[in-house]
Amino acid sequence: MIITVVGLGLIGGSFAKALSARTKHTVWGIDTNPDTVKKAVEQGAVKKCVLPNDLNKSDVVILALPPHAEIEFFEKNADNFKKGGVVFDCCGIKRAIIEKISPIAKQYGINFVGAHPMAGREFSGFDYSLENLFDKASFIVTTDNACDEAVDTVCGLAKEIGFGGIKVTDANHHDRVIAYTSQLAHVVSSSYCKSPTIDEKEGFCAGSFADMTRVGKLDAKLWTELFMLNADDLQQEVENLVKNLTEYKNALAQRNEKEISRLLKEGNDIKVNSLKKENRL
Amino acid sequence: MIITVVGLGLIGGSFAKALSARTKHTVWGIDTNPDTVKKAVEQGAVKKCVLPNDLNKSDVVILALPPHAEIEFFEKNADNFKKGGVVFDCCGIKRAIIEKISPIAKQYGINFVGAHPMAGREFSGFDYSLENLFDKASFIVTTDNACDEAVDTVCGLAKEIGFGGIKVTDANHHDRVIAYTSQLAHVVSSSYCKSPTIDEKEGFCAGSFADMTRVGKLDAKLWTELFMLNADDLQQEVENLVKNLTEYKNALAQRNEKEISRLLKEGNDIKVNSLKKENRL
Repeated sequence: MIITVVGLGLIGGSFAKALSARTKHTVWGIDTNPDTVKKAVEQGAVKKCVLPNDLNKSDVVILALPPHAEIEFFEKNADNFKKGGVVFDCCGIKRAIIEKISPIAKQYGINFVGAHPMAGREFSGFDYSLENLFDKASFIVTTDNACDEAVDTVCGLAKEIGFGGIKVTDANHHDRVIAYTSQLAHVVSSSYCKSPTIDEKEGFCAGSFADMTRVGKLDAKLWTELFMLNADDLQQEVENLVKNLTEYKNALAQRNEKEISRLLKEGNDIKVNSLKKENRL
Repeated sequence: MIITVVGLGLIGGSFAKALSARTKHTVWGIDTNPDTVKKAVEQGAVKKCVLPNDLNKSDVVILALPPHAEIEFFEKNADNFKKGGVVFDCCGIKRAIIEKISPIAKQYGINFVGAHPMAGREFSGFDYSLENLFDKASFIVTTDNACDEAVDTVCGLAKEIGFGGIKVTDANHHDRVIAYTSQLAHVVSSSYCKSPTIDEKEGFCAGSFADMTRVGKLDAKLWTELFMLNADDLQQEVENLVKNLTEYKNALAQRNEKEISRLLKEGNDIKVNSLKKENRL
């Protein structure tokens, strides 16, 4: 198959590298940055870079752009995609994407599948993309308005390049759970960095501090888009966390040893159960 | 030197293993659990296990017990330690320890130094102790009521077994910063696990979720002690985090894109500056 990756950043670049290195498919790329295009070809991530009007030769197109840019690209190039071809995307939110793109895809006879590879780094851009970024990661596929054959094609590619597992779900469920497992983590990490005590931390840190603040370094523009397109679900998770943290705060204010112990034990039991469910304990 | 480790759990066991494997000192152990004593000797973590009334033969004693147990042990055995010998501890809070132990140490002619090795695991007990647990970790030494020679001895041992750096400070500063870099992380992780969404997380997780919840699995009894003995500082950090999180929550509730972007950028800039300060960016 000919597979074109649109947007050769961290995610698109990693897809291109993995597909080129690990499959027999022909991989093309599209990017607006001439430097990226040059590097992607030189490093063998793609066989060549093409223009949007070459998309009709591509059996599968992977959209690896931020939400608004992706929607804009799809709207602008709807007529360029191969009729009956498969297009899937990588956006961290799915409801808003599918609402916008699916009707147009249907109109133009394109098989669109909303996907979300669960991997990332605290760095963006092609330079940080890795052939093995998705190794052992979960690949989420949403079935809303998608045909079974297209879903199979997309899942097959994900397996070919080394994803650890496939999670099939719908866009609403995806967005609700992702608000907790990913978006909330970015809100917490961003907030955690804001204590004035951070200036005195040198020599006082072990793994837990590194873990808490790692994703505080983020692409603010991208994450603002993702948060705005999932504001309801995320707001609820932040509210819930604030409520839970307030219980610890109150117990501390009251020097309530029994309550502090109860709260910590409760959290520990939930975490232990969750590890057991995954056979990790 | 003869060095006795009191309490052969995760931390004490790791000290014993590192000292035995990496230095020429003679390492003895004290533990109340006969199984642990047996394993520690069999595995060569200690040359032998002794009783508290053998402590007077020990040039250095490492106390690796939870706060209250440590204070109790020291009070009970103050007369057993070698006069002029060095005793240091590993507790995660320092003010309360030094307030209780230093006056007794002075009375009995013992050189006590409050220390805190910045390493841990989500598991406790001798079985999880590791010779290399402290590799590259920070070793914090507090100077309150400690004589320079004893501090030098303790720092020398820390270097000998492979700690990555030594941080010399005082107990108040230690407790204030540790409330942020370590204790708050445990409060957040414990709280983070409590969203009902955790039951649906399978297939939706990448690194950020794992990082956020890792230390939610904790020894509730130990951490309750640590929190109670540093409740003021920790309460302030939790309050501060709740205040910061509430800003994101309000911006989300108002769908205020500009404010979400500002908050994320602010967090990113702080994290980036903090990485630059450490020469990690």
